[in-house]
Amino acid sequence: MQTDLPILEMIAPGVWRLRCGTPEAITPVSVRQSTVRRAALAALPAIGKAPILADQIQFRESVRGCVVTLPLGCAEGIYGLGLQLKSHLQTGRKKTLRVNSDPVADTGDSHAPVPFYVSTAGYGVLVDTSRYASFYCGTHAPVSAMEARLQAKQQLAIAESTAELYKLRAIGNRVVVEIPVAHGVDLYLFGGPDIGTAVQRYNLFSGGGCLPPLWGLGGWYRCHGQSTAAEVVALAERLRQDQLPFDVLGLEPGWHSQSYPCTFQWSPDRFPEPDGLIAKMRSLGYRLNLWEHAFVHPAAPIAAAIRPHCGDELAMDGLVPDFLTTEAPRIFAEHHDRALVARGVAGFKLDECDNSDFIASAWSFPEWTQFPSGADGEQMHSLIGVRYQQVIDAVFRRHNRRHFSQVRSSQALAAGLPFVLYSDLYDFRDFLRGVVNAGFTGLLWCPEVRHAVSVEDLVRRIQAVALSPQALVNAWYIKNPPWEQNENLPGSAVKQATDLVRQALQLRMSLLPYLYAAFARYWQTGRPPIRALVLDDPDDPAGWEIDDQFLIGDLLLAAPVAPGQTDRKIYLPRGSWYDFQTGQRYGGGTWITVPTPLTYIPLFVRAGTVLPLAEPVQHITAETVFQITPTVYGPDNATGALFEDDGETYAYEAGVATWIRLAWGPTTGTQITRTNPLPFQRYEFGSWRFV
Amino acid sequence: MQTDLPILEMIAPGVWRLRCGTPEAITPVSVRQSTVRRAALAALPAIGKAPILADQIQFRESVRGCVVTLPLGCAEGIYGLGLQLKSHLQTGRKKTLRVNSDPVADTGDSHAPVPFYVSTAGYGVLVDTSRYASFYCGTHAPVSAMEARLQAKQQLAIAESTAELYKLRAIGNRVVVEIPVAHGVDLYLFGGPDIGTAVQRYNLFSGGGCLPPLWGLGGWYRCHGQSTAAEVVALAERLRQDQLPFDVLGLEPGWHSQSYPCTFQWSPDRFPEPDGLIAKMRSLGYRLNLWEHAFVHPAAPIAAAIRPHCGDELAMDGLVPDFLTTEAPRIFAEHHDRALVARGVAGFKLDECDNSDFIASAWSFPEWTQFPSGADGEQMHSLIGVRYQQVIDAVFRRHNRRHFSQVRSSQALAAGLPFVLYSDLYDFRDFLRGVVNAGFTGLLWCPEVRHAVSVEDLVRRIQAVALSPQALVNAWYIKNPPWEQNENLPGSAVKQATDLVRQALQLRMSLLPYLYAAFARYWQTGRPPIRALVLDDPDDPAGWEIDDQFLIGDLLLAAPVAPGQTDRKIYLPRGSWYDFQTGQRYGGGTWITVPTPLTYIPLFVRAGTVLPLAEPVQHITAETVFQITPTVYGPDNATGALFEDDGETYAYEAGVATWIRLAWGPTTGTQITRTNPLPFQRYEFGSWRFV
Repeated sequence: MQTDLPILEMIAPGVWRLRCGTPEAITPVSVRQSTVRRAALAALPAIGKAPILADQIQFRESVRGCVVTLPLGCAEGIYGLGLQLKSHLQTGRKKTLRVNSDPVADTGDSHAPVPFYVSTAGYGVLVDTSRYASFYCGTHAPVSAMEARLQAKQQLAIAESTAELYKLRAIGNRVVVEIPVAHGVDLYLFGGPDIGTAVQRYNLFSGGGCLPPLWGLGGWYRCHGQSTAAEVVALAERLRQDQLPFDVLGLEPGWHSQSYPCTFQWSPDRFPEPDGLIAKMRSLGYRLNLWEHAFVHPAAPIAAAIRPHCGDELAMDGLVPDFLTTEAPRIFAEHHDRALVARGVAGFKLDECDNSDFIASAWSFPEWTQFPSGADGEQMHSLIGVRYQQVIDAVFRRHNRRHFSQVRSSQALAAGLPFVLYSDLYDFRDFLRGVVNAGFTGLLWCPEVRHAVSVEDLVRRIQAVALSPQALVNAWYIKNPPWEQNENLPGSAVKQATDLVRQALQLRMSLLPYLYAAFARYWQTGRPPIRALVLDDPDDPAGWEIDDQFLIGDLLLAAPVAPGQTDRKIYLPRGSWYDFQTGQRYGGGTWITVPTPLTYIPLFVRAGTVLPLAEPVQHITAETVFQITPTVYGPDNATGALFEDDGETYAYEAGVATWIRLAWGPTTGTQITRTNPLPFQRYEFGSWRFV
Repeated sequence: MQTDLPILEMIAPGVWRLRCGTPEAITPVSVRQSTVRRAALAALPAIGKAPILADQIQFRESVRGCVVTLPLGCAEGIYGLGLQLKSHLQTGRKKTLRVNSDPVADTGDSHAPVPFYVSTAGYGVLVDTSRYASFYCGTHAPVSAMEARLQAKQQLAIAESTAELYKLRAIGNRVVVEIPVAHGVDLYLFGGPDIGTAVQRYNLFSGGGCLPPLWGLGGWYRCHGQSTAAEVVALAERLRQDQLPFDVLGLEPGWHSQSYPCTFQWSPDRFPEPDGLIAKMRSLGYRLNLWEHAFVHPAAPIAAAIRPHCGDELAMDGLVPDFLTTEAPRIFAEHHDRALVARGVAGFKLDECDNSDFIASAWSFPEWTQFPSGADGEQMHSLIGVRYQQVIDAVFRRHNRRHFSQVRSSQALAAGLPFVLYSDLYDFRDFLRGVVNAGFTGLLWCPEVRHAVSVEDLVRRIQAVALSPQALVNAWYIKNPPWEQNENLPGSAVKQATDLVRQALQLRMSLLPYLYAAFARYWQTGRPPIRALVLDDPDDPAGWEIDDQFLIGDLLLAAPVAPGQTDRKIYLPRGSWYDFQTGQRYGGGTWITVPTPLTYIPLFVRAGTVLPLAEPVQHITAETVFQITPTVYGPDNATGALFEDDGETYAYEAGVATWIRLAWGPTTGTQITRTNPLPFQRYEFGSWRFV
């Protein structure tokens, strides 16, 4: 049935809501814990009217749920829909946003599907649903368009230009969103004026981007899953000896031995004195991150208390806390606080909170599970990742200690949650695409390094992860570090691998203050720290389909090399660029091909940049002061920025932070300006360097 | 909500119906055109009570649809659910029965998902729905089973036997079927007493298995899609010169040139005189099978008439006839009758009637399509394949001419429709698994041969297809036959390949009368002509997971060799077996390993068999008389059978047919008995052979 025209309502600067039918009670917006960042939204360019008008949107209910139809212009690039590992440009594609841990095809199955898309026409649309909605982005056309489409096809046979192709595609096309079960849905429309600003508005609507602690942006190493405390200490000492910069060690505390659900208690055999281990790690300059999942073993101290607040089906033979109640999160958080966070644990790896019940084991809970909150399994699968993050995040906020953690599932409005997504998948190209695509919808993704089939494979993966949101080596199923993984590797190969790994990690450490500033901007303005080229220059169609390069902040372009590539085709966006490693200057808006020896990490600096390069440190403490070499990529005026705060607490939110502006000009010379000087300084500046 | 106990009602011998809630109007049973074969059902062993009792079944509605829970014993093997190419034994697995043309993972996506499963405990369950239902076959357990499952897991760590594993698996387990959208569903329960008989009951409930015309079981060759009439004739003559037995040539009539929807009119350029071509083919001993799909081009003669009876969305830019109305089938069938079947076309290849809207093109219609019959796209996707088959089949029935055709989608109750499923996929193991699995749910599947990467690849594929329901070489995208495919192939390799292809096809022609009898039994008793080992001996667990061997009729076991195998591990079921090619006798209930030179096609004959081997013919006409050598695999009493009728019409249904019983015994000697002698004879018997 076609209902009355829905009503469009502006709810924040540049953000409109359109209520269609009767929305469900449990949605991403309904479970949000963050606050809309109205002031930051107001600081963006003013938008007079909604990017889509109410009469351009159709809504109907059906027995299957409801269907929303939105306009799609003849040359719009659609992006987003969460962590899509298999495709980038979504125009012409369908995605069903189903939470899944093992997406094998380009169907929309994802660890973190997000019902939000943005368009190169300069707007974004959030469909506020926790159902497995399907987005048809210009895939189908109605019968009324038949003759026109067939005529266009015949014309195309004669003149096959890209523009013509887009025109044909557009006849009768629209974005159609089908939402199962629901009798209605709220749409949130985000104005631009451009696609990048639309993403910022979405992130600010989500509460702003997260700002990890400084140490969170250093190196991460997850130890072998069976490690004992002694083995962890030995490894920690060895990494220091090898001068490999790592800030975080990840552990499996052994609380899932015997059977898979968690007891959330350290294995007494392997970790008899957790407090001592935490202290020892701290003395070596490491933070501890603990693996867990949310499914509760009956022997867990919280089991009896939480049981009435769990779903009626088991997951991995454990209880599934209903994080949509008030009691389950309280019980879960209290234990984590008292037993773990208060005692010094710095973060968690939240595993298994996605779903894949197609494999031959009782993996996660079924969609027909009934939860005390009234949610069913489908809604819970969509939201458990986000709610789980919120619960853990709140524990650290109570301690005024920032953390940076990992999670295997997320959904909408998660930009402010300091969690990085990861996967058991391992395809290099998909992993790189994940880095690029996560930035469209307020997510962060880690192309983690595990085993490698060759030194080259290892090095290329390390180089990619070193330029990603989280520089993680995940050796949970490997006894030795992957650079020593093959026992038959000759000593020279181990040395070569170790040196190349060190080079990549030191590059990260030298860029860390720059990256930190990019995250601060994410928090402050919603601008993703790592993002696709199209977000910065949607008017350059050459960048639309590039899913293996990305911008880091505003000034750097990364183009990681895949294993097997002896040279690399790279698209340089419009403007001028300098090769970071060789200093060579290139005109932009063009493709270049560069040879890629193993020591070469393609990274380009935008002309007009002052890059604040740091002397690499091995790890970061509260006292760390970075030695910065402001590096000018001229020849004309150049600027850069750093963000200064305590790097560990939430004091920056209350204003205990400053931007440091770096500037150079042929006439003005060098300038360093702090807008809000603090009683301490995190950065010391050496001589300026000119490339 | 939990509703009152549903009521169990016996509706045919050994078949019960259980109505849960309020079923939907459009279901497989609602669209069936066939009649339940009550007499044949009554001839099976009498079953006193339903295999599952009403109080063992739970039903509840939810906002997502409804959920049915059925019992699952601790050692039940579950099979079926349609053409599952990725897995065989479904216990412990989940399948969502979604129609899809490119299933890439073991999720239930299938050309032909069927909501029917059978159990080694000796029963079957049909869930009468056209929704994408999910079947959870012992995958999940409720919270109440937690402690027991964890205890069992600990025990398992000590004693890991298969029996223990099954026991653990069973704690708290059940089959759960979640049906989206529907407020209720009819369950049909099929008694055994054994799994094989449960399959027979399902097939007889469906109307009985199909009986193809004799020529349909010969060789099939689909010509290059761009072929002209002259090229088709040239190829037809060449196949005869090369002594390669083929009965059917497949063509693309060119009615989808320019744009993809069909006009259902021969291309005037390539086929200026269709009647002449059909006659010429007939004179060379070939039948013509025409490729088509159901999506109608506006230039088709039927377009204007059918347009009001179509869905509101396009598929491949064509109209989608609503085959659930009365008008669309009438218009569609009338044109096929008058323009094609009446003029001598012998069958069709019904393409594209499955769905895959995830790939980047407007492929098929979306699930939110609205059809005049009231069906939505989901229901139509589930049923269009079956309805399309029914529409085409009815045309041939009107002419009292049997056909054997191809189709790319099917669903429940299709056993009586003489169509073989095929796919654009091409994995050898999946294709072989398809042959095995199709037999659980009244389907036939063709592991067709297209291109090959080597002579070995070609030969192994030909050997497999020669023992399958349809011996099809599908060269639609290859100019020359695949045995000449590689232009650089030296002449000797072409000769070797041609000889080996001929060997495999001649084997098929010699087995054709035997295979025809197996199909006649399929029609008469519902026993699948080609089937998994577990159907004949469910009490032998060794056979449960064998998905690359199959029975042909009751007396033959095929074990096709995959490319790359230089020997083959083969499980011989209990009993004694003879190697068809070497004559060697083996005891059964054991694994053997045999070397597999290219000339070796593993085929085993059950001891106690009189195999009616035919002198291979090049093709079959109404006048063909097979020269039969009854071949005895002794040493004790042996029997075999042939089915005799005109081989072309439906007269057999009215009784114009006879079984010929072949028997030999050490004391009785040879016997040939016709139960119902006909005025003609299709078989002549030569000397008996004794192996």
